[in-house]
Amino acid sequence: MKALRFEHGELKLADVATPSLPGEVLVRVTHSGICNTDLEIVRGYAGFEGTIGHEFVGVVEESDNKTLIGKRVVGEINVGCGTCELCLAGDPRHCPTRTVLGIKGRDGAHAEFLTLPERNLIAVPDAVSDAAACFTEPLAAAIGITEQVEILPETRVAVIGDGKLGILCAFALAARSRNTSLIGKHSSKLNIAAGHGIEPVLLGQAAGLANAFDVVVEASGSDSGFATALDLVRPRGKIVLKSTFHGTPKWEAWRVVVDEISIVGSRCGRFEPALAALAAGTMPVESLITDEFPLADGVRAVERAAERGILKVLLRMAD
Amino acid sequence: MKALRFEHGELKLADVATPSLPGEVLVRVTHSGICNTDLEIVRGYAGFEGTIGHEFVGVVEESDNKTLIGKRVVGEINVGCGTCELCLAGDPRHCPTRTVLGIKGRDGAHAEFLTLPERNLIAVPDAVSDAAACFTEPLAAAIGITEQVEILPETRVAVIGDGKLGILCAFALAARSRNTSLIGKHSSKLNIAAGHGIEPVLLGQAAGLANAFDVVVEASGSDSGFATALDLVRPRGKIVLKSTFHGTPKWEAWRVVVDEISIVGSRCGRFEPALAALAAGTMPVESLITDEFPLADGVRAVERAAERGILKVLLRMAD
Repeated sequence: MKALRFEHGELKLADVATPSLPGEVLVRVTHSGICNTDLEIVRGYAGFEGTIGHEFVGVVEESDNKTLIGKRVVGEINVGCGTCELCLAGDPRHCPTRTVLGIKGRDGAHAEFLTLPERNLIAVPDAVSDAAACFTEPLAAAIGITEQVEILPETRVAVIGDGKLGILCAFALAARSRNTSLIGKHSSKLNIAAGHGIEPVLLGQAAGLANAFDVVVEASGSDSGFATALDLVRPRGKIVLKSTFHGTPKWEAWRVVVDEISIVGSRCGRFEPALAALAAGTMPVESLITDEFPLADGVRAVERAAERGILKVLLRMAD
Repeated sequence: MKALRFEHGELKLADVATPSLPGEVLVRVTHSGICNTDLEIVRGYAGFEGTIGHEFVGVVEESDNKTLIGKRVVGEINVGCGTCELCLAGDPRHCPTRTVLGIKGRDGAHAEFLTLPERNLIAVPDAVSDAAACFTEPLAAAIGITEQVEILPETRVAVIGDGKLGILCAFALAARSRNTSLIGKHSSKLNIAAGHGIEPVLLGQAAGLANAFDVVVEASGSDSGFATALDLVRPRGKIVLKSTFHGTPKWEAWRVVVDEISIVGSRCGRFEPALAALAAGTMPVESLITDEFPLADGVRAVERAAERGILKVLLRMAD
């Protein structure tokens, strides 16, 4: 089968054997989405080699559980060992020996086929298009914020960063709070959010909003994002960190102490609420799609996703 | 009156007028304690000029409320404006125009007299000695952690830093958790905590404790403290920041995201639980006193407090 692989510092389309792992389900991938984590891997920041990609929708091709065959599915990307303290407590996402689809120790989704354990797969409601289903994983990560931090209708929320992740976070938070602002550098991206109960704010105008927010989500993936968040959050407020970019920025830790700020690291979320929101059509994720390429043009698709001003780029596996 | 003042980059004992502020209470200071914040101010890191000191016990000398006169008191150090949103919500500690005793816009406690509003003063129970009462403010800050982060008997807690603040935090946390470790570089300081339900751990031996703690308190005041905390805390655990040292360390923010760590900035705490603990005699704070000087030797006392291996240095105002 064809797979988009990062090996020896190079991204290329390769012909490899169709995967087969005892006890796992074989999924024929229909579409996949290119995430900033993919770009980090291709820049060599994440130490991963193999087939990249972790946002996907597909159809079950082979399974020990025959009732699954032919079902349209998405998949939770973390696979725990199943036996450690964290796995037994129901938290395989933090299993110390976990593999992660297309990120850590496990070939990913930018390929014609992938495998995952049955427990990782969730059926996609008919109301959700393939394109929308590709957003299940990142939307789950965005909605996950609301399971870590209380968001009430009156909570004043700011999201820093008008990339894919920032816009999805703004969608997820605006579903709870009627005071959600999205702060970014690009009017064209801010405008995608503007029609959906989200206040667009150009970064240059954010200086007047010092201490104005109860919760600030840092989703810019830049060194300066955290400093901006510290300026915007009120004393005793919360900063949610979403970016996994591999920098080591400096931070004024003493300001966190003096203003008694809480910082909440937030990575993944549960798929069920994301699929429910997609099925309800309340989050216009397809407005984030800039482009779509066939898998055969995967290298070009990743280059496109890395260009300035580009939001989501999808791959389709059928020519 | 005599006052220990930091002015024009120099610490000196000065003769100044006895303070008088309309509507405030005049307190004759009996004893005061030298805090690391005092040392930061004397190093010029905090931008404060005036009489330093904020840990004290004293006797009310003059007050519009005559029933207070002669009462032994300690005092909450933050004075809010009384009219802003935060003050009206009962949180003067984060009032943006607050003054802070001996730290910000208000002369402090290393002096024969100070003034504070009546609402800041709390009577000291007879069972609490003057020396112990000097620990009310820092012990309140330590106990304040338990009002921000849930500490159960089985919670695995580590405190990094065997200075004054770290040991007080360990006392406060060991009162709630039966699994409290204090991690530091100095056997002599660790031994002060060791007898009180606290496991002493030399920093060099902490490497074997990666991910072993639910809650890690960073009280070392060093650049490397946060990195150690990240190593020790479990996924989804909490790091409490207590040090207000004015560095800008680098941090691996991505690890906070991947492991979904929460970081809680923690500065002050309520005085009532601290006074109750001191009255009950459950926290042996006087074991932290290394030395005591008369106010006349205040400059020498601050130099002594800055020496390696020294814990709490007290000043007594009577010769």
